[in-house]
Formats: sequence, C-alpha cells, structure tokens
Amino acid sequence: MNNTLAPLPIPLIRRYVENALDEDLGSTGDLTSSSAIPADANLKASVVSRKTGCIAGIDLLKTVMLTLSNDVDVQIEKHDGMRVSPGEVVATLSGPARAILSGERVGLNFLGHMSGIATATREITDLVTGLDVRVTCTRKTTPGLRALEKYAVRAGGGFNHRFGLYDGVMLKDNHIAALGGDIGRAIDTARAHVGHMVKIEVEVDTLAQLTRALPHNPDIILLDNMTCETLIEAVQMIDGRAIAEASGNINRNTARAIAETGVDVVSLGWLTHSAPCLDLGLDIL
Amino acid sequence: MNNTLAPLPIPLIRRYVENALDEDLGSTGDLTSSSAIPADANLKASVVSRKTGCIAGIDLLKTVMLTLSNDVDVQIEKHDGMRVSPGEVVATLSGPARAILSGERVGLNFLGHMSGIATATREITDLVTGLDVRVTCTRKTTPGLRALEKYAVRAGGGFNHRFGLYDGVMLKDNHIAALGGDIGRAIDTARAHVGHMVKIEVEVDTLAQLTRALPHNPDIILLDNMTCETLIEAVQMIDGRAIAEASGNINRNTARAIAETGVDVVSLGWLTHSAPCLDLGLDIL
Amino acid sequence: MNNTLAPLPIPLIRRYVENALDEDLGSTGDLTSSSAIPADANLKASVVSRKTGCIAGIDLLKTVMLTLSNDVDVQIEKHDGMRVSPGEVVATLSGPARAILSGERVGLNFLGHMSGIATATREITDLVTGLDVRVTCTRKTTPGLRALEKYAVRAGGGFNHRFGLYDGVMLKDNHIAALGGDIGRAIDTARAHVGHMVKIEVEVDTLAQLTRALPHNPDIILLDNMTCETLIEAVQMIDGRAIAEASGNINRNTARAIAETGVDVVSLGWLTHSAPCLDLGLDIL
Amino acid sequence: MNNTLAPLPIPLIRRYVENALDEDLGSTGDLTSSSAIPADANLKASVVSRKTGCIAGIDLLKTVMLTLSNDVDVQIEKHDGMRVSPGEVVATLSGPARAILSGERVGLNFLGHMSGIATATREITDLVTGLDVRVTCTRKTTPGLRALEKYAVRAGGGFNHRFGLYDGVMLKDNHIAALGGDIGRAIDTARAHVGHMVKIEVEVDTLAQLTRALPHNPDIILLDNMTCETLIEAVQMIDGRAIAEASGNINRNTARAIAETGVDVVSLGWLTHSAPCLDLGLDIL
Amino acid sequence: MNNTLAPLPIPLIRRYVENALDEDLGSTGDLTSSSAIPADANLKASVVSRKTGCIAGIDLLKTVMLTLSNDVDVQIEKHDGMRVSPGEVVATLSGPARAILSGERVGLNFLGHMSGIATATREITDLVTGLDVRVTCTRKTTPGLRALEKYAVRAGGGFNHRFGLYDGVMLKDNHIAALGGDIGRAIDTARAHVGHMVKIEVEVDTLAQLTRALPHNPDIILLDNMTCETLIEAVQMIDGRAIAEASGNINRNTARAIAETGVDVVSLGWLTHSAPCLDLGLDIL
Amino acid sequence: MNNTLAPLPIPLIRRYVENALDEDLGSTGDLTSSSAIPADANLKASVVSRKTGCIAGIDLLKTVMLTLSNDVDVQIEKHDGMRVSPGEVVATLSGPARAILSGERVGLNFLGHMSGIATATREITDLVTGLDVRVTCTRKTTPGLRALEKYAVRAGGGFNHRFGLYDGVMLKDNHIAALGGDIGRAIDTARAHVGHMVKIEVEVDTLAQLTRALPHNPDIILLDNMTCETLIEAVQMIDGRAIAEASGNINRNTARAIAETGVDVVSLGWLTHSAPCLDLGLDIL
Repeated sequence: MNNTLAPLPIPLIRRYVENALDEDLGSTGDLTSSSAIPADANLKASVVSRKTGCIAGIDLLKTVMLTLSNDVDVQIEKHDGMRVSPGEVVATLSGPARAILSGERVGLNFLGHMSGIATATREITDLVTGLDVRVTCTRKTTPGLRALEKYAVRAGGGFNHRFGLYDGVMLKDNHIAALGGDIGRAIDTARAHVGHMVKIEVEVDTLAQLTRALPHNPDIILLDNMTCETLIEAVQMIDGRAIAEASGNINRNTARAIAETGVDVVSLGWLTHSAPCLDLGLDIL
Repeated sequence: MNNTLAPLPIPLIRRYVENALDEDLGSTGDLTSSSAIPADANLKASVVSRKTGCIAGIDLLKTVMLTLSNDVDVQIEKHDGMRVSPGEVVATLSGPARAILSGERVGLNFLGHMSGIATATREITDLVTGLDVRVTCTRKTTPGLRALEKYAVRAGGGFNHRFGLYDGVMLKDNHIAALGGDIGRAIDTARAHVGHMVKIEVEVDTLAQLTRALPHNPDIILLDNMTCETLIEAVQMIDGRAIAEASGNINRNTARAIAETGVDVVSLGWLTHSAPCLDLGLDIL
Repeated sequence: MNNTLAPLPIPLIRRYVENALDEDLGSTGDLTSSSAIPADANLKASVVSRKTGCIAGIDLLKTVMLTLSNDVDVQIEKHDGMRVSPGEVVATLSGPARAILSGERVGLNFLGHMSGIATATREITDLVTGLDVRVTCTRKTTPGLRALEKYAVRAGGGFNHRFGLYDGVMLKDNHIAALGGDIGRAIDTARAHVGHMVKIEVEVDTLAQLTRALPHNPDIILLDNMTCETLIEAVQMIDGRAIAEASGNINRNTARAIAETGVDVVSLGWLTHSAPCLDLGLDIL
Repeated sequence: MNNTLAPLPIPLIRRYVENALDEDLGSTGDLTSSSAIPADANLKASVVSRKTGCIAGIDLLKTVMLTLSNDVDVQIEKHDGMRVSPGEVVATLSGPARAILSGERVGLNFLGHMSGIATATREITDLVTGLDVRVTCTRKTTPGLRALEKYAVRAGGGFNHRFGLYDGVMLKDNHIAALGGDIGRAIDTARAHVGHMVKIEVEVDTLAQLTRALPHNPDIILLDNMTCETLIEAVQMIDGRAIAEASGNINRNTARAIAETGVDVVSLGWLTHSAPCLDLGLDIL
Repeated sequence: MNNTLAPLPIPLIRRYVENALDEDLGSTGDLTSSSAIPADANLKASVVSRKTGCIAGIDLLKTVMLTLSNDVDVQIEKHDGMRVSPGEVVATLSGPARAILSGERVGLNFLGHMSGIATATREITDLVTGLDVRVTCTRKTTPGLRALEKYAVRAGGGFNHRFGLYDGVMLKDNHIAALGGDIGRAIDTARAHVGHMVKIEVEVDTLAQLTRALPHNPDIILLDNMTCETLIEAVQMIDGRAIAEASGNINRNTARAIAETGVDVVSLGWLTHSAPCLDLGLDIL
Repeated sequence: MNNTLAPLPIPLIRRYVENALDEDLGSTGDLTSSSAIPADANLKASVVSRKTGCIAGIDLLKTVMLTLSNDVDVQIEKHDGMRVSPGEVVATLSGPARAILSGERVGLNFLGHMSGIATATREITDLVTGLDVRVTCTRKTTPGLRALEKYAVRAGGGFNHRFGLYDGVMLKDNHIAALGGDIGRAIDTARAHVGHMVKIEVEVDTLAQLTRALPHNPDIILLDNMTCETLIEAVQMIDGRAIAEASGNINRNTARAIAETGVDVVSLGWLTHSAPCLDLGLDIL
C-alpha cells in the first residue's frame, strides 16, 4: 500500500506559510510578544496532541518557525503519516521565545487542519483493512488549500482522486443530459477530445445506465449512491473492465460494508470539507 | 444587535476567487465540460440547501460565475446572514452551461465552507438569545482563509475577536510566565509599548490571578476554562471595569449556561476550525 | 477528430497579457507613441499573415488591445485553429492609434509564437491524415509558457501529452535503472503509489524490454527511437493491450512512415521548443 | 568587444525558476520520481550537448536544482558565453536522485532555449568577425521571457537593442504617417517630449527619407530592407552623424555582406523569436 | 516609555526590498557597474549621515546588500532608534564593489526616507520631554509604505495610531452628519457593530460636541483644531473618562504648548507625508 | 515644451491602487463607514486644494473610487499638470457615501504625494522660464513609487532622468576610481559593453576632469556641485559636444542663476525625496 509519502514541493510550502504569516502578522507583527517578551528570552516547548490521530503538515509547522527565526530548533517526533495518542509529543521547539510564541498559532492551524484530515482518512483506511480497496478524496476541498488537503489524505493512507477539472474527465448526470442522455456518446465524445494520458470516468446511478456505459470502455465507473446489493451486482457486471468506484453516504458506519462489495475505490467528500481539526497544543517545558 | 452586514472588500473577493479557480482549472480548464458540452448550450440551475443553515459567501459564488462568463445571470434568493431550510433555493443561475458546470464546485466549496461557519455561529447565537452577550471567534482559523471565516462568523450573528497578532494584545500564561509570573507588570509593559488604539486583554485561570490583574486595568479579561460558579464570581469581581470574556469548552450544551453567568463575550475556536460544511447542491432545472 | 477547441481560462489569459505588457511598457509606457502620436488620433489596421499557417492566440492579441484601451474594436477573421494563406487578414483593429501601436508588438509576439506552434503541428497532422494516430507534444516547452504552447498544439489539430510531472507517470530508463533495471517492478511500484485517475507510461528501447513490460499492464508504452520495422513488430506485440506511442526523430520526412506502423500516438518535442514564429505583420489601412 | 558578461539579477532568476517549477510540479510534485525512486537514492549525471553551440542559462539550471534540494552539487564546466561541441559536458550534477530527475526537464528547457538563442547569435557574430559592427536583437521576443532572451543574445556576443517601449524612441513609418509624413517633425516632437537620457531612432526606407531625416539629428537611423548598394550610399550620407543600423532579411547568407556595407549595427528579430533550442541531454553516469 | 523597538516581520522586509530592487535593476541590472567595475573588485564604504537625525530602516539597507550578494559584510553602527550627528557613520559595508554600488541608491532611499520620518518624530518627542503625552502619526502615509512609515515613527520615539480602516473606529464629522448630526447615536451604532477588541474614537470640534459625546463613552476623543485654552477646558471635561487626543496644526512651534494642555496624545499627519529625507551618503574608504 | 502628458499604463495604476487599498482596508474593510453609514446613503463631495500647487495623480484618485464602487461618479476639474489655487476644486465625487468615505484617505494620499512633487517641480520650472534648460529628477525616489514620482515630475513640467540602473550609464567618481581614476577608460569601457540605444553620462567635479572626459565623447556630462562661474566655463568647454547637466544644491534660490550658466539640464534629488505633500481635503457638499 502507500508505505512512502513524498513531501510537497518546497516553494509551495513556503508560499503557503508566508501567506498565513502575513495574515496573522499584518504590518506590525506580534504586538503582544514584542512588548511583553524580552528580545533575548529563550523557550523550549512541545507540540502535544490532545487526541488520538494521524499527523500531517509537520513541514509547515517547521517552516513557520524557521521563517520567523533561523535560531529556532525544531525536533520532529512524529512525521507525517504517523499516529499519535493523547499526550504524545509531535515536535519540540527551542529557541527565541518571541519567534516561537509568534508562530505558535499559525503553525498549529496548519498542523491541526491537515492532521484532522489525515486522522479522518486514517479512520476509514483502518476500517477497510485487509480489503483490496482504496480510500480517496474528492474536489470538495477548502478553496485555496487543495494541495495541502490532498496531501493530508495521502498522509492518512488514502489516495487522491483527480486534482481539478484539468487532469481527468468525470462525466456526471448533467453532462450526459446535455448530450440528450446518451451516456455512450458522452464517453466517446470526451475520449475523442482529450489527450491519451487522461482517464475518463462516468457516473451511473442505475444498473441500466451501467449497461449502457460499459460497451464504451470508460476507465472508471462511479457507482453513485447505490445500496450494497446493487454495488455487488454492478461489480459483477463490470467484471474488471473498468475501475469500480463507490461514492455517496460513505462514513464510519457504512465504509466496511461498502468496501466489501468488491469496489476498487471508495470516495468521500467529507474527509476534506468537514473533518474537524486535530486538537493540538503547545506546552511550554 | 448585528442587523447589518458590511460586504467584504471587492478586490479581496476577486483574489480569493481567482486563486480557487486557478486551483481547479489549472492550465487547460475543464476537460469534461469543454469536451462533452456544446459551447452554445445553456442551462438553468438552482443552488439548493440540503440542510437547515445560515448563508455566507454568496458574493463568492457569484464572482466565480462572472469570472468564468459575463453571460451567467445570478439571482440571489438568500443573502448572507439569512437562514435556509432543507430544499430551499439559495440562488438561481442561468447562462452558458460550460461556465456554470465549470464553476459549480468552486462556487459551492466557498459557499459551503463559509455557510458551515455561519450556521454553527447562528446556532450558538440562537442559544443565547435574550442575553446581553456576544459570540465571537478566535484566531484558530484555516490558514489563508481568515478574512472569509471571520466574515462568516459575522454573517451568523457573531462578532470578531482580534484579526491577528497585529491588532490587539492578548497576554496569555506563557507571556506572563516570561515576565516571572507578574501579571500586572505584563499588562503595564504592554500598555507602555503599544498604541493608544490597541486594546489589551489578559488571560486568567483563577480568581487569584484575576485579583492581581484588575488593578492594572486591562480592557478585557479572558476567563479561561472556569466553571459557571467561578465565572459568576469573576463577573462580580470585575464589576464592569473590564469586558469579561469566557472561553474554553463552549459548545451547544454549555453555551447558554455560560452566557447566563453574566460574561460579556463567549469565544469559540471550533466555529472556524471545525464547523462542518453546509451541504448544498446544484440542481439543474 | 479535434473539431472543437475550448478556450483558455480567462484569468490565465489576462495574467499572461499583463505580464507581457509590463515587460514592454515598464514604468513609463510607450515613449514613441505618447510623444509622436496625438492622443485623439485613430487608426485602422489589419493583422496580416505573411506565410501559410494555422492561427493560435487570437484571444491574447484581443486582450492586449482591450487592456490598453476599451475603445479598440477587434474584428477577428481567423479564429484559433483556422488556416491562413500569405496575405490573408487575421484580424482588423480600429480605434485609438496610441493603443494599437503600443500593443502591436506584444500582440504579435503572442500570436506569432503560438501560431508558429499551431502551424508546425498542423503540418504534421496533415501528413498523417487518414491514419488513426494522434500527434502530441511533450514537456519540452518554453519555461512559463506551457499552457499557451499546449493550447497551440491543440489549435493545430494535435493533442496534449501530460502537462507536467504532476498529472501522469512516465517511467524512463533512469527511473527503471534506479530500481535495478526491473521494469515490471517500476510499473507495479508506481501503480501502488499514485491515484486511480493517473495513467502510467513506460519507455522501452527494445523489444526485449517491451516483453518484460507488457505483463505489468502499463497504460501507455513509449517506443523510443525505434525503426519502422521494430515499431511494426512492437505494435503487434502490444496488440491493443496498451496505447502505443512512438517518439524520437519524428519530423516532416519521417512522420507518415512512423504513423503507418500502427502506433496510436506520435510525440514530438520540437513542436513546442523549436517551431519558428509565424510571420505576421500589422498593416495600417 | 563584449568580453565580460554580467549575470542577471538574482531575484529575477529565482522568480523565473519558481514559476517554471510550479508549472511542472503543480500541486503534488513529481509523481514518477516520488513513487519509483527511493528517497535516499543518489545520482551523478552530466548535462551534455548533442550539438555545436554556445551556452546561456547555466545559472537557471543551477537554481532549478538548488530550489529542489540544497544537497545537489552543480559543477559547471561551460559558463555562459562559452562554446560547446557535440558530446561536451556542460555541467555535472550529483546528489539526491529525486531532485535531479524532477528538475531535469525544467533545467534543460531553460538552458536549451537560452543556449539556442546564444548559439544563433554566436553564428552571426562569428560571420562578421573583424568588422566594426554590432549584432543586436529586437523586441520580437517570447512574451514574458525578454530578460532571459536579451541576456542570451549578450552571451552569444551580441548586443541588446532597447528593452521595451519605455527605454528608447523608435519612430516607424506608421508614427511618421500619423504626423502627415513629416519625418523631421516626428523627430523634433519626440525629442521635445522625452528625457535627455533617451535616444531617438528613426526608420527610413529610402534615401529620400534619409535626406529628410538627417538634418534633425536622430541618434540612430534604421535603414530598413535596403539592398547592399543602397546601404553603402546611406552610410556615406550619414557620415558618422548618427549610428547606422541595418535590418530586414539578415540571415546566415546575407549577414557578412550587409555588415561590410559599413553600417554600425545589424538587428535580427529571429534570434529571439525563431532560433531553435540547443539540443542538450542529461546522461546518468 | 518606548525603550524597545520590535523589528518588522522578515518576509515583509524582503518583499519591500525585492520590489525596490526590481524597480531599479529592471531586466538587465546595473549597466554601469557591470560594464565599468571588474567582477572581482572589492570595496569598503561607510554610510555617513550629513545631518543630525534619528535612524530607521537599517535592516532594509542590510537586506538590499545581502540580496545582491551574500558576500557583502554589513557592520551596523547605529541601530534603528539611535541618534546620529553630521559625519557619523551609520554602517560600514565591505565586499564586492559591484553589489555595493548597485545597491547603494536603493539602500539609501529606504534609509533616508525612513530616517527622515524618525528624525521628525524624534524632534517632536524631544520637545515634549517630561510630559505624559504620546506623539502619534496618522493614516496620511505614502501609499504602499505604511508599514515602514509607521515603524519609522516608532523608531523616533512615537506611537502608532490605527493602521488602517480595519483596526479602529474613527467617527469624523461626515460620519456623524450622515446620522443626522447625532454624535451619541453614531458612537452607539458603531459600538453595536464592531468587535469588542476595537476602540472607538470620535472627533469633536467644539466643547458643545464634547458634551454630547461624553455620555456615550467613546474610548478616545479627538479634539480637532482647538486652541490651547479650549484644549485645557476639554481635558478637564473629559476628566480621564476617555483618552484625549489633540490634532491639527501641531508643529515644532506649537507642540510643547499643546502637549502641556494635558492631552494624552498629539497626532501629526506631516510626520509621514511631508518629513524630508535624512541626508545620507556612501563614502568609499 | 512639455505640452502633452501621456497617462501611466492602466495595469500599473490598478496595481498601485489595489495595493494601497489593501493596506488601508485589510481583511475587513472600513469599520467606521460600514457601521455608522447606512448602505444606501449617498454623498456629494469635492476634493479641494488648500494651497497653490500643480496637480498629479488624478487617475489614481479616480481608480480608487471606482475600485470601491462602480457607482461613484468622478468629475475631474483639474487634470494632471494643471495649476490650482487655494480653495479651488480639483474633482467632485458623487455616489455611495460608504465608498467615497472609505476611499477618501487613500485617494488623497496618492493625489497629495504626487501633487506635492508636481508642485515642487512646477516651482522650479517656473523659475527658469524662458531659458533653454530642462528640470529633471534623479533616482532618489521613494522605494516602490518611482513610476508615480517620475510621472509627477513630468506633470510639473519637468523631465525624467534615467529610470533605473538599467536604462542609462552614469559613471560616478567611485566607478572611475575603480578603474584607477582613468576617466576616459571608464567611458570607453562602458561604451564597449552597453547597447547602442544606451546613453553614457559621466560625472566630473573639476574642469581638469572635464578636459580628460571630453575627448571620449560622453553623451552627457554631469557637472557636480560647481559654482556658477565654473559652470559657465564648463559649458564653454563642452561647446555643444555633450549635454551639460548641473547638479548639487539646486533649490528655489539658486535654480535661476544656475540655469543661466547655459547648462542644458538641472537635476534635483529633493523633488522626489523631500517635496512635501500638497494639502488637499475632501469637502462634503
């Protein structure tokens, strides 16, 4: 499975961090630390998880600190993709107190948001352990944060669906409707227009639609909002000629059963749009 | 109360929208619509809420559509700050099918994320109806989205705490510790350094700390993680000499009781870092 | 075939145009026009092709003019993807003389560069007429201009290969070497790591390599620098189980013969890195 | 002659490189290397020229590598402005395999494009060896890349014409037409309006126009599309009172003869808009 | 008083410096140094003040130099907030001659502009020595430079007023007029709308207005253009219930007398919009 | 003379305006107007000059208003380059009260800063009326604002010196020193390296230096800090072979006498680095 996790491009991390620091520091910086904390004060503090979870975003926390001061030392205890229990130390920071306190909130905001997504993803991937199925996210992401959120899904053991409208075709009901409901023509038209590196997915809501779609050889078939019984039948009909993806109403209660229908992929929008933050704090040592 | 809601600065909206569209369109645009949908096809569709909630972000949805095509007509039914019931129409879009389908996801991502925050805020503000208390957010926001999320809190009937490290002093335990625990000196030092337009807030965890803080006239006192009994006592001790703000563990179950202690402000981090998306869909008419 | 051509995202066009205008106008603007041409002078002029070619980039020319003055009227005679003969009018501009003369060079630079690529692509697509083969470009593009150059290839009747390192896997000899030469393991490892929407291509230089690759079901096989005889044999071996792509030394003299070997795709780097500009001029009427 | 070559401003190089890396890496990075190449694998490879040429852009290649990993060591064998023969090593890279393979294409795209221009320029400058004439480029550059392309011309032993509309006056036929054909008035008007650091060039197509222009003391006279005989006569008429620049149809066949007419400058648009890429490859050692 | 001065955020300094260097270096860099100064020439030079003043902006000078070459050594003699006499050395630079000469003007432009503001502020703060009054700036700043100019005021011993329209309420006559002249209602309305961390200031021109404003408890009262006699009376009326700020016509001649009226704050627009540059030069050693 | 004034490039104006509005509006916008002014209130107000001056920057004021609301009508009474007397109306604004009040300060900051420079320039150009001399600025500008400040000098009847290090050679004493004091070699070296469109200026402090410089035909000679007597002698020595530029200590008292020495150009740094703001106000009608 996904035993390695490639880091995000460095310039991308730096831009996210600078943008978030600008947002928090404005034109003056941290009024509190710069007035109440002596410039030469040092500090040692640990980022500690308050909950069980899975870490993602540690490079962003580190970059936040190093952007504020080259003198902050960041010791990482839990790398992206690792699990944490309540009370466990994720990283230890030591160095100038002003820099650490000024960067605390931005660093934790990144780490908490991304780890929240990784944690939710890990929960689902744990639930389907042993099955030959992939857990994926969707394009229902927080605007502007897609690169980070897709990465967090990978950190949680999941896989990414397409990144945008530009790297995959996904024919939904409204696209098909625009071609008079002719699902096969929709697939053929799309294939005739896009490059040979682009996969084509088609959404079907019924087995009748599936029957019409299959002869046109879509790469992936999205089986939307089907019962487990119907999914089992659909998987049999597809019979390995396309990747079978289930979506709709997949959560902690339903994931295992849906995965057991034999689909290749389950996709969940809420991993990226509604997973709560992982609760993390900075404890001064 | 908050009966008017000033719109966000126009250039700020435009930048957010262009950034999110870039993220979704990449260098080619929407492969699916541009291959499967005829260039001259038109469409009429409604943004419909699937849940009860409060709307925020309608200007972003509109700007998404108008950025993709000037020919999309956007009829807004629910303005920011208005409540919606399941099945109610939020806005109706008509115009070029390609533009509407290409912008659907980005538009809904903005609207769903912001309305999710507005909905959570509205729930809490409803719970404290009739009390002279303000519901506020914190700096625990999604990195890069603070302006939108703070706005969504306002749309939900809440108020904003400081926007960043730059527009208010907040002395927390670690700041005070750095000055040897001398809470009064921390307040006095901060006041001596910052401009006269900046308010100074100090966090206290105990009534003993409160006693030490009060003679130094902080503008706001953050009563952190206190029981309702202690909060009542604290409010009496403060006696209007400072704004009393309660924080820590404030949720749907506890909000009313905490608000009834007489505090002026309750602040909740989860409104912005963990409120789930409001479920919205685009229904073709 | 590629009978429709979807336009580039509008914000992307605007950024390219503003960047190029900045480059040419600097901090003062056009010293010549602003000193020698009266502010109220008007002009009518045609963009004329000096050579046979295929047009791409007309929206950029138009945006250049409208950015300089809303009063310039741009009548397009040849849309992107259309052929031109020497002397034919591509577009006619009328309006303020200063704006038209100030924008002339930037507009023609875009149009000439992109049309040069479209023209080269069209030459090759014409050569393979009647064959079931696609002409594609590569990642050998001018840094920063990939979106425009890939679009120009589409305008010339070609198709796009992957857009970057992010939207497709391409295993080349050095990747395979890093895994000890085990071509099958390289394919399997890649498939285990990337999302289900990502296609996997593998480069083979010999039929022996092809034999080793085929059982691992790559989506595309790049047959690199093979003779036509070997290509024919390779196509037979592949037998429809993967897309067969030929590359290496494909030019006006060899394209037809290579295409006739039965490969599905021919890919050419020089379309985007070395195609000369299409010669276009602005003739005052 | 041009025996030294000042490097481009560092921040400018960094922006070009980051922009091009973004274009290639997108939001995920290099899917192939990160899945197929172990994170700790190292590599040594040489950038080798496949053709005879002149190098430009080596700092961009180096910056590409260092942006991806500080651990890549870049040994430069051929600095900008140096000649290369087929098979010669331009630079040797050693370090993390993932970084080197991920940066290969972007690095070579910069180096190939710029070296292509330097090579074309060097060919022309070689052809006019021994003559007191300068080879220059024009504003016919690839949009957005002018700084790099003008630099590449310098690397090839050429000189730069004006950089944009902002740093020199160039009165062409259409400007003159707008002033009723009065070439002298055009020159005088321009001189009256622009700063004393700005040079004024005027284009003439005939000796009659030259006669009218000379008394108004332009700094440079562009002799456009004249035969060698006419150029000789024009140079005699100018007699050192202005810089004589020839343009139009100057190529490998005509350059020497045109330069021998005694003009001070020959300017060639195709150096920057149509010079093919220099063929370079990365050979793993 | 203001005995410590927190530095500006590092990313903010870098952006200002890169923007200013772009402005001066353009697409080619320093034509003079790169042609006339050997690449390996070194230099030692001192930044010397020609006048009495107060320094601000030394980090920007240093960043200018380090952006051009890591090999420039910058020895700072006068840190921000320190006084200088004519002829005194502010900093000594040693390293590559090209870098130092190329960065000289941009570095001095930052340092001179900011030190000019610090010097003007220091003059006024010196004039009010011994009084319990603060000298502040306004929003009358040079567009785009507010962060630097507000910082320079702090370096000169002054304090900052609000940073923008976003971090404080300032009700002026026209706002009040829009509410029918009802000064109390204006204050109450504002308070009902803005967050609890935002201070509310109201401008009054007469004691009658002051009488109407006071019962509504504004945080600050701006006493605009009043005589010293009226100011004294106003201060007595306010009696510590709000911060009393005087503005209008405060200069070197009037500052002391106005400060002696007992106001808490004097605010001066000209510190940031009209203070002349501090005259500084670079002397080669 | 300078009877026409070409406007600044539109995209450049828009970027300056958006940057300045961001600076003032932050993430929330105008707290005061949005809370105290009804959304539907309208306003009519005039921008009035409090002093005698010359206007520059009216397009920036207009763009500020239109960026905030398309419904603001801006009637311009005094275009850039026109003179104003105290009390005269520069422009009249009518439309939404919130937009006008929110944009007031940013608009006036642009207009006041630029008009201050235009006014100072106009004073000097008036003083030298009737003489064949040009008043120019230098590179001593406010960092980031050079395009606007150079434009303001043109609006005041002055001319621009070079815009940066990139569009002209200026050999100063330190450059010459680096070549062993050989002023002629410095000129010759520079000419051999830079393009034929670039002018070369050399600074001389004495007539002896002038004697050494003249045979090398610099385009411009900067006569630095010379007395009027020496300037007269220098002008005679130059005798039209180069443009003679005087600098150093040129102010309202000395400008006429220096101009009368016969120099072609007088250059003044303080026009851009120390001219005070023109005092302008917004009067509600």
